[in-house]
Amino acid sequence: MARLTEDANGVYIIALTPFTDTGALDLDSTDRMIDFYLDRGATGLTVLGMMGEAQKLTTEESQTYVRRTLKRVDGRVPVIAGVSSGGFAPMKTLTDMIMGEGAAGVMIAPPPTLRNDQQIVGYYQQAADFLGDVPFVLQDFPLVTSVTIPVSVIQTIIDQVPTCVCLKHEDWPGLSKITALRKAAETHGKRRISILCGNGGMFLPEEMARGADGAMTGFAYPEMMRDVVRFQREGDLARAQDIFDAYLPLARYEQQPGLGLSIRKYIMAKRGAIASAALRKPGASLSKDDIYEIERLIERQTERLQELGQ
Amino acid sequence: MARLTEDANGVYIIALTPFTDTGALDLDSTDRMIDFYLDRGATGLTVLGMMGEAQKLTTEESQTYVRRTLKRVDGRVPVIAGVSSGGFAPMKTLTDMIMGEGAAGVMIAPPPTLRNDQQIVGYYQQAADFLGDVPFVLQDFPLVTSVTIPVSVIQTIIDQVPTCVCLKHEDWPGLSKITALRKAAETHGKRRISILCGNGGMFLPEEMARGADGAMTGFAYPEMMRDVVRFQREGDLARAQDIFDAYLPLARYEQQPGLGLSIRKYIMAKRGAIASAALRKPGASLSKDDIYEIERLIERQTERLQELGQ
Amino acid sequence: MARLTEDANGVYIIALTPFTDTGALDLDSTDRMIDFYLDRGATGLTVLGMMGEAQKLTTEESQTYVRRTLKRVDGRVPVIAGVSSGGFAPMKTLTDMIMGEGAAGVMIAPPPTLRNDQQIVGYYQQAADFLGDVPFVLQDFPLVTSVTIPVSVIQTIIDQVPTCVCLKHEDWPGLSKITALRKAAETHGKRRISILCGNGGMFLPEEMARGADGAMTGFAYPEMMRDVVRFQREGDLARAQDIFDAYLPLARYEQQPGLGLSIRKYIMAKRGAIASAALRKPGASLSKDDIYEIERLIERQTERLQELGQ
Amino acid sequence: MARLTEDANGVYIIALTPFTDTGALDLDSTDRMIDFYLDRGATGLTVLGMMGEAQKLTTEESQTYVRRTLKRVDGRVPVIAGVSSGGFAPMKTLTDMIMGEGAAGVMIAPPPTLRNDQQIVGYYQQAADFLGDVPFVLQDFPLVTSVTIPVSVIQTIIDQVPTCVCLKHEDWPGLSKITALRKAAETHGKRRISILCGNGGMFLPEEMARGADGAMTGFAYPEMMRDVVRFQREGDLARAQDIFDAYLPLARYEQQPGLGLSIRKYIMAKRGAIASAALRKPGASLSKDDIYEIERLIERQTERLQELGQ
Repeated sequence: MARLTEDANGVYIIALTPFTDTGALDLDSTDRMIDFYLDRGATGLTVLGMMGEAQKLTTEESQTYVRRTLKRVDGRVPVIAGVSSGGFAPMKTLTDMIMGEGAAGVMIAPPPTLRNDQQIVGYYQQAADFLGDVPFVLQDFPLVTSVTIPVSVIQTIIDQVPTCVCLKHEDWPGLSKITALRKAAETHGKRRISILCGNGGMFLPEEMARGADGAMTGFAYPEMMRDVVRFQREGDLARAQDIFDAYLPLARYEQQPGLGLSIRKYIMAKRGAIASAALRKPGASLSKDDIYEIERLIERQTERLQELGQ
Repeated sequence: MARLTEDANGVYIIALTPFTDTGALDLDSTDRMIDFYLDRGATGLTVLGMMGEAQKLTTEESQTYVRRTLKRVDGRVPVIAGVSSGGFAPMKTLTDMIMGEGAAGVMIAPPPTLRNDQQIVGYYQQAADFLGDVPFVLQDFPLVTSVTIPVSVIQTIIDQVPTCVCLKHEDWPGLSKITALRKAAETHGKRRISILCGNGGMFLPEEMARGADGAMTGFAYPEMMRDVVRFQREGDLARAQDIFDAYLPLARYEQQPGLGLSIRKYIMAKRGAIASAALRKPGASLSKDDIYEIERLIERQTERLQELGQ
Repeated sequence: MARLTEDANGVYIIALTPFTDTGALDLDSTDRMIDFYLDRGATGLTVLGMMGEAQKLTTEESQTYVRRTLKRVDGRVPVIAGVSSGGFAPMKTLTDMIMGEGAAGVMIAPPPTLRNDQQIVGYYQQAADFLGDVPFVLQDFPLVTSVTIPVSVIQTIIDQVPTCVCLKHEDWPGLSKITALRKAAETHGKRRISILCGNGGMFLPEEMARGADGAMTGFAYPEMMRDVVRFQREGDLARAQDIFDAYLPLARYEQQPGLGLSIRKYIMAKRGAIASAALRKPGASLSKDDIYEIERLIERQTERLQELGQ
Repeated sequence: MARLTEDANGVYIIALTPFTDTGALDLDSTDRMIDFYLDRGATGLTVLGMMGEAQKLTTEESQTYVRRTLKRVDGRVPVIAGVSSGGFAPMKTLTDMIMGEGAAGVMIAPPPTLRNDQQIVGYYQQAADFLGDVPFVLQDFPLVTSVTIPVSVIQTIIDQVPTCVCLKHEDWPGLSKITALRKAAETHGKRRISILCGNGGMFLPEEMARGADGAMTGFAYPEMMRDVVRFQREGDLARAQDIFDAYLPLARYEQQPGLGLSIRKYIMAKRGAIASAALRKPGASLSKDDIYEIERLIERQTERLQELGQ
């Protein structure tokens, strides 16, 4: 299986983990969801992420789910898996399992205990030592991890840790980080790694214009990301932004902390990608009012896209 | 001067504090800014808030600024002032000064040390005791204060503290809180207080539909809030949402943590409301790329509003 | 195997997880350490806790370690295991494994996402539903979990969740919580659960006097806790405090955040309880100066205990 | 008035702010308290600190209190004042007032918004620019500020900001920071600044041995700090530690987060240094049980000191 490289681009979807209404792992929906993502332009998949309810799975379930995912993907696109952990031993065990099943790389968020530049660099050096030659994505998501990674630290990790091949950029929104990293590569000859952006796609046009290579997020309309990435690359910035704007009211709504995953699963179930919108416990559920608002936003979005000839 | 009541509604603008390029308080711009806000539909003003760089003013400057503001407003709309403080004595001194100048009420955010329901209720009871009959706005903004106030606690404060007449709602977005408070008033006969919403207006249509009375935020286009509030009230929800959607790409951009105030001041200076976009130190500044993106979003926004016949 | 009950008392040691110098699980040291604890007065053991580097173990290692521990203990004292987790499914899987091996109960810390009274109560109700009839310890440790649990919430959990049989008290130091819970039991007929205290034993005499049943912590001199608990119970408060005071300079030193576990392991290795003082990565290590200070404190402690005829 | 220099040493007491039972500033007690501190070995005073309830004072009260303090001190020892603030303008106004009254320097804690090395250095550079030639103490207290300052950042500030003449060391306990800073001065020719230690004196013997110049904290028995500093300097480490150990049970008790200031004021009132133990609101108060425990610890402390011939 091909490994993740610094050339990763396009739309790496943060995949859901589908459950049945009673909370069991739903493997049939897993197949259907993967096809749904790939049919709508996913160029990669990221599983076992924060929005994948990874922390609610048992070790055995994680393995079952990853195995099923890789079987269904069948080499069509690279699959990344989140392996963030409080310790390097369980991180390595999970990584070995995942890579053994055929994954392309792993993603590592910093533990919340890291509190300064040196500690962050040291952590990623140690992690990379443990994982050997496995390529990894550095997840920069301060809102959730509470670890702020200055761009100088990211650059140091790029300089010193060759297996760091991709940045999942979701410092909210931290556009200047993209600019700085690209400038370091272009002007100072630094290594250029892949930058894929998160935050539900809420800043994708600006991120692409700054030099990002694509998205790594889970917005329930992957076609938005596919089209924005495509038209940005083709230089049709107006078209990219028109499409983005049409999806923005719903993307904004889906981005609500605490409730976002429930909204995303509701839409994915409505679109037929998964059978049940249920989150595994503990998890939030939607009210009648929430659902009314989502339905209204979807209706308006459809109309707006028709106006745009999409 | 009329005092703030439970009937407060419309658009209470979180006012900027204008500085010159060298960081001095700019009182001429203060006058101009107030006219700008009132000309574009502000039904109230909130000064000395977090986005007003209140913590960067000396006591004397705060007084000068409030006095100038109240003189220029001249009773046309009510003026609220933020008085959040680590102690009740300075809170009371500032409140007395402000009310003496003719303000309509004050706004109080919880100190970050509060850690449970009982402490929060106790804090607002003590604060209200100190402030006497001065009406106040309860600011619910967990992202910044790190204090989460459950809706049951807000209801208890409404029940027990009669001078709490308004909620500045910016639990992100916490739409269910509005629904619960309105239901408590309508179904259980609880006191109905004003709910004005923050977060840069990013959820205003939904908030209004849930029962909010308006906005209390500082988006650089007050006319967006004015129109959304007006059309929502008139029952023309589609029109309200069309206008909202036209402003959303820029509203989203202005809502960036850390950079948002710089963006807001840039736009306000561009629109002629203030002379300088400068923040007082410590404060962020915009890059060339940031400004390019803002200009582009404004241009698209203007076009879209023309399409809508606005 | 007997299950944990509300009568738990004495010294429940938070057990270390011994590793070799190269980071492998050291099962021979595990045996030796258990004998060390039991010989020095442990009336129970708590494994897989925060100070047991639980998060650094793979699932398989956790099982191996728990199995070895239970075999060596061989029913002499009850064994509790930490099962805190981001999801109920992995929590249940770990619990089932542990209880199947013969443990007496589990310990659950609140996840850092809980932010108000109702959420905390709801979380423990859901957890208890998942775990069925397994008795559990509620860990109240705000310094690390960042979740503050008011005493009224603890009381509600006691009232509503019968499988909550013990409180691991380490709200720093929160002596008033013990007083309030005991008063509720004695005066208002509330259920009396076991209260065992943490924080390295730094407040043990006061905690016992307030109504605690013992200690649940890992100070490298279990005999301190044994003696303080014993003399407090026998009413010889002066003797209890004399002994406590003799150990306090070192207990204080061992309680340093970040470095504490390294200090504890150093002392345990020095005392012959484990073979290596090494922490698994990521973990701190001691400097020459640190070790000098520890040695000096131990020497003085020995002298002082001799003066006291201990 | 002499200014604070890199030679500051001995015991800089973090002074209380005395209030009457009804919460008014108590200036007579201020006089008495200052004499109390100076009679027991204070070589400096730090006012308007966190434990001085500075945030509960109005601007006018701060001035009144500082003026009274400086008048009573009358040049006998240097007086430092806390001026930490959300903005540089109010920080400068307070600093100018304080220095104008005759203070020797100011103390600055980092605002909680600082999140990486570069931001911390930048903040202190900007602050120093604003304050001109006023010498300042850098307060390193992560437990309260939530800003972790690596030793490399402290060293950079020492290198680049000549008005930083003293470190208030209370990274809990961060003994290795003292060692590293002293080594940098001795081995690498870096500037040697004063290091005075906080945390209630809980690690004073170790801190002195590592190279600290004294204490800057508010433990209600300044004579403990005076004697430990003196005997450490004279090389009588055993005597220093004996005295320290005698006070440790009470020092530990006084160090309780949330309750510590109430305990300290209780003891200071009991010792006759101030008239009332009252904190200004919002503030904790002691229970009957708390007071019983304090009295018992004082009694035992007195006995132990007599045994030691103190």
